[in-house]
Amino acid sequence: MTNCESIEEGDYILLFLDRRRSYLIRVEKGAQFHTHKGFVEFDDVIGKEYGTRMKSSLGVEFAALKPLLPDFIYKAQRKSQITYPKDVALMVMFSGVGPGSKIVEAGTGAGALTTALASYVRPNGYVHSYDVRAEFQRVALKNLKKAQLDEFVEVKEKDITLGIDETEVDAVILDLATPWLVVPHAHRALKGGGSLVSFSPTIDQVVQTVEAMQIHHFVNVGTFECIMREMQVMRGKTRPQTLMTGHTGYITHGRKVSYRNGSEFESA
Amino acid sequence: MTNCESIEEGDYILLFLDRRRSYLIRVEKGAQFHTHKGFVEFDDVIGKEYGTRMKSSLGVEFAALKPLLPDFIYKAQRKSQITYPKDVALMVMFSGVGPGSKIVEAGTGAGALTTALASYVRPNGYVHSYDVRAEFQRVALKNLKKAQLDEFVEVKEKDITLGIDETEVDAVILDLATPWLVVPHAHRALKGGGSLVSFSPTIDQVVQTVEAMQIHHFVNVGTFECIMREMQVMRGKTRPQTLMTGHTGYITHGRKVSYRNGSEFESA
Amino acid sequence: MTNCESIEEGDYILLFLDRRRSYLIRVEKGAQFHTHKGFVEFDDVIGKEYGTRMKSSLGVEFAALKPLLPDFIYKAQRKSQITYPKDVALMVMFSGVGPGSKIVEAGTGAGALTTALASYVRPNGYVHSYDVRAEFQRVALKNLKKAQLDEFVEVKEKDITLGIDETEVDAVILDLATPWLVVPHAHRALKGGGSLVSFSPTIDQVVQTVEAMQIHHFVNVGTFECIMREMQVMRGKTRPQTLMTGHTGYITHGRKVSYRNGSEFESA
Amino acid sequence: MTNCESIEEGDYILLFLDRRRSYLIRVEKGAQFHTHKGFVEFDDVIGKEYGTRMKSSLGVEFAALKPLLPDFIYKAQRKSQITYPKDVALMVMFSGVGPGSKIVEAGTGAGALTTALASYVRPNGYVHSYDVRAEFQRVALKNLKKAQLDEFVEVKEKDITLGIDETEVDAVILDLATPWLVVPHAHRALKGGGSLVSFSPTIDQVVQTVEAMQIHHFVNVGTFECIMREMQVMRGKTRPQTLMTGHTGYITHGRKVSYRNGSEFESA
Repeated sequence: MTNCESIEEGDYILLFLDRRRSYLIRVEKGAQFHTHKGFVEFDDVIGKEYGTRMKSSLGVEFAALKPLLPDFIYKAQRKSQITYPKDVALMVMFSGVGPGSKIVEAGTGAGALTTALASYVRPNGYVHSYDVRAEFQRVALKNLKKAQLDEFVEVKEKDITLGIDETEVDAVILDLATPWLVVPHAHRALKGGGSLVSFSPTIDQVVQTVEAMQIHHFVNVGTFECIMREMQVMRGKTRPQTLMTGHTGYITHGRKVSYRNGSEFESA
Repeated sequence: MTNCESIEEGDYILLFLDRRRSYLIRVEKGAQFHTHKGFVEFDDVIGKEYGTRMKSSLGVEFAALKPLLPDFIYKAQRKSQITYPKDVALMVMFSGVGPGSKIVEAGTGAGALTTALASYVRPNGYVHSYDVRAEFQRVALKNLKKAQLDEFVEVKEKDITLGIDETEVDAVILDLATPWLVVPHAHRALKGGGSLVSFSPTIDQVVQTVEAMQIHHFVNVGTFECIMREMQVMRGKTRPQTLMTGHTGYITHGRKVSYRNGSEFESA
Repeated sequence: MTNCESIEEGDYILLFLDRRRSYLIRVEKGAQFHTHKGFVEFDDVIGKEYGTRMKSSLGVEFAALKPLLPDFIYKAQRKSQITYPKDVALMVMFSGVGPGSKIVEAGTGAGALTTALASYVRPNGYVHSYDVRAEFQRVALKNLKKAQLDEFVEVKEKDITLGIDETEVDAVILDLATPWLVVPHAHRALKGGGSLVSFSPTIDQVVQTVEAMQIHHFVNVGTFECIMREMQVMRGKTRPQTLMTGHTGYITHGRKVSYRNGSEFESA
Repeated sequence: MTNCESIEEGDYILLFLDRRRSYLIRVEKGAQFHTHKGFVEFDDVIGKEYGTRMKSSLGVEFAALKPLLPDFIYKAQRKSQITYPKDVALMVMFSGVGPGSKIVEAGTGAGALTTALASYVRPNGYVHSYDVRAEFQRVALKNLKKAQLDEFVEVKEKDITLGIDETEVDAVILDLATPWLVVPHAHRALKGGGSLVSFSPTIDQVVQTVEAMQIHHFVNVGTFECIMREMQVMRGKTRPQTLMTGHTGYITHGRKVSYRNGSEFESA
């Protein structure tokens, strides 16, 4: 995600064969990368512009691309179920976060969502990412380093359902099993008007989360899902693809407002 | 989209009644904002924190929210058909743009997509937005100013199908009637590995665009659509909403690679 | 739904103007049918073949079609929310009913589903249709008579949640608020291997119904919904339609098997 | 699809284990049916009511169901891609066919659609099914015999794009590669007001078919697809299934009306 244009030793590149086969790898002088379509010499790409093509030892053409955010998301090591780029994109949009935002996130998981958040809050924003599972956070940190985004993230081995340390945050973004338990903490941590966004696979999680948000006076509370349909485009044979991911999860979002005078939460 | 926490004169606020009725308005000292649910005194909100609630003259409760990116998109003055936040979010994600990116966009339209792009490239990126219709660009500039994002955008009254002035850009992002005519120009303007993303309502536009991208050696070319489904969440009555927007458009994306040796475009 | 080919006095015809405007009317000698596009003389169509075209008094072309099952369903007088032809089609298919089947149905509603069931069980099957609302059943009977299907239906003003009179039925087909209350009665009424099919708009109804079916040892229990998407087909402009019905309801189906030895329901 | 209630030698039964594993088999006295969950003795089910449960040699429970139409469709031997029950259901509904209808169908394929049409036109209707591939028709006939529906079908080894022998038919139902070539023949074969229904996987086939139908003055021409989404229903964990069939095909339908006076097709 740097801006330098030519490929140097130590850079991560996306070695692209086709839409199903691409590799996120680190360029090493004098080394080779082996695939079932032959090996590629790293020395062939060092000093070249991104987007260059090269031939493998078996004569198969590869391209060396600069990895972009969706590549880092797709390639995040999958210790947990990964959040899909489409859902990441929609959570970012509906949270309203951008450069400079201060965000609380949980759980860290393999860091797919964390990577996206860190990417968009640069250069002056920050992500506090909670997870109780240290082994996930090690993976996440590794993935964040690959994307050169670790400096924008604090990984906290803590249970967010027990509380949030930060205050005056712009957004609380949740992808965990019991988001409703976090809602009261989120209300306390958020700035006035701040966003709560939660991702859940099941309808029961959604219902509990929406109820908690209503109890805590969030406004503009809505839930939606995005069904993403790939097209197979070829003149004379264009059609939606036969198999698709039918469901990943529901996205629920809302905005914090002050409690009403006399509300039971007033003194909270 | 500033970071100041209390509402001041001259700020834009989102005056929120419910999910169907909210107003993006500028706070004026001593003035009132009239709705069918009574009027609101701006002096009641000046100096208050965002997220504050107030009562209208008819006793109806409103909340004063800081407008976020999706609010600016939804509220962009509709001189042309607006791009939906979901599509904006996915185009941003699949383009891989973020803080620091240099982007070419066309057409400007009412500036909905432009606003999003400007928001995400801050503080050191830039958007060059082409449109042949001066009257649209006036509207877009007004919308960009509301969101305090006009300094990150150059609006160009030019026909992008005739050429792109910029070079070494990170992404070319298109929402216009004949995207396939822009593909050769986009190849020339993009950095190696740069992204082309195009939004089109019809399948025929998609087919022509994909063909042009294949001719010009873009790789990782894919087309998808996002069908967004709102849920009506209420314990015991939860269900998808009856009416939905069934289609907005298809998103096609791909990455530039260098032309092959001996390619007909080599000298281009 | 008769087989006679020429239009005679007393027949119902579908007077077709375009996909949004068509009229299910009874042919009367010497009379006229008035529309906002002028009036049509019934005498112009009497004795003509179905499919004939005619001009209205304002010179607008209409066609006189024989009403088919989906026309009767769409045109059923809407005292209640109507079941959609797509859902009717899928309920019929998954129930496995056909000519000769003996069916119990509830609620009758405006008779849309009843009409379809009666149509498919002809000439030697029968539908017993329960509803507690006499005024609905009057409408349903009127609709069934129009389609000449009333002889295949017994309309019963009874609460099916209190019990089913019939036994050895091929299928029990439900479109009512509390289908789970009918599940034990359905098990008793069905033949071995018979089908239970239920239509419900909300997820909570589905969960309760599936649980009741599991308790009563139904097998092959599944739930699905059909999202129907209309295409706007025009060379160079083909695309899915912008607005669509996003949700009508979920269809749950299963097959009766005998209770296990020693089951609590054994003696039932 | 007979009405007898107890299982006899020679009957086909659906031996049901779970939603993924069931077997359409013929009952043979003294024989066994072997599965990976042990074998079942046919003598255990002969004389029993449909819906009876039995244990395999390994103590696993099976149920013996009467095969219904969707079972015959799912289990049709797959020499060609099978038409999905949902599409069969919708094609039947939108064609308006039912008991007594006279239908022309092409291509026969493995007989899945043919089986459904034959089932619904019983006892006094008829299906003329065209296919140029004799080997498919042999499979189709075998499948029709299993379902005891072969007496309602004439299988014709003929190329329907060259013409239709029948006249005054209620519906022409197409599932073949070039439906637009059949449209003129269908107009000639259909009764006034008769239905043409066509199933095609690609958009290009749809466009060509709709254009041919417009040229030949079909009215009420529409195209849609049904996206079927299975739900995973379990209290506390209910959600749409992760993987789904994203696309099978588009259904196009319309009604024949007489040609206009002076039309180029008038003398046809």
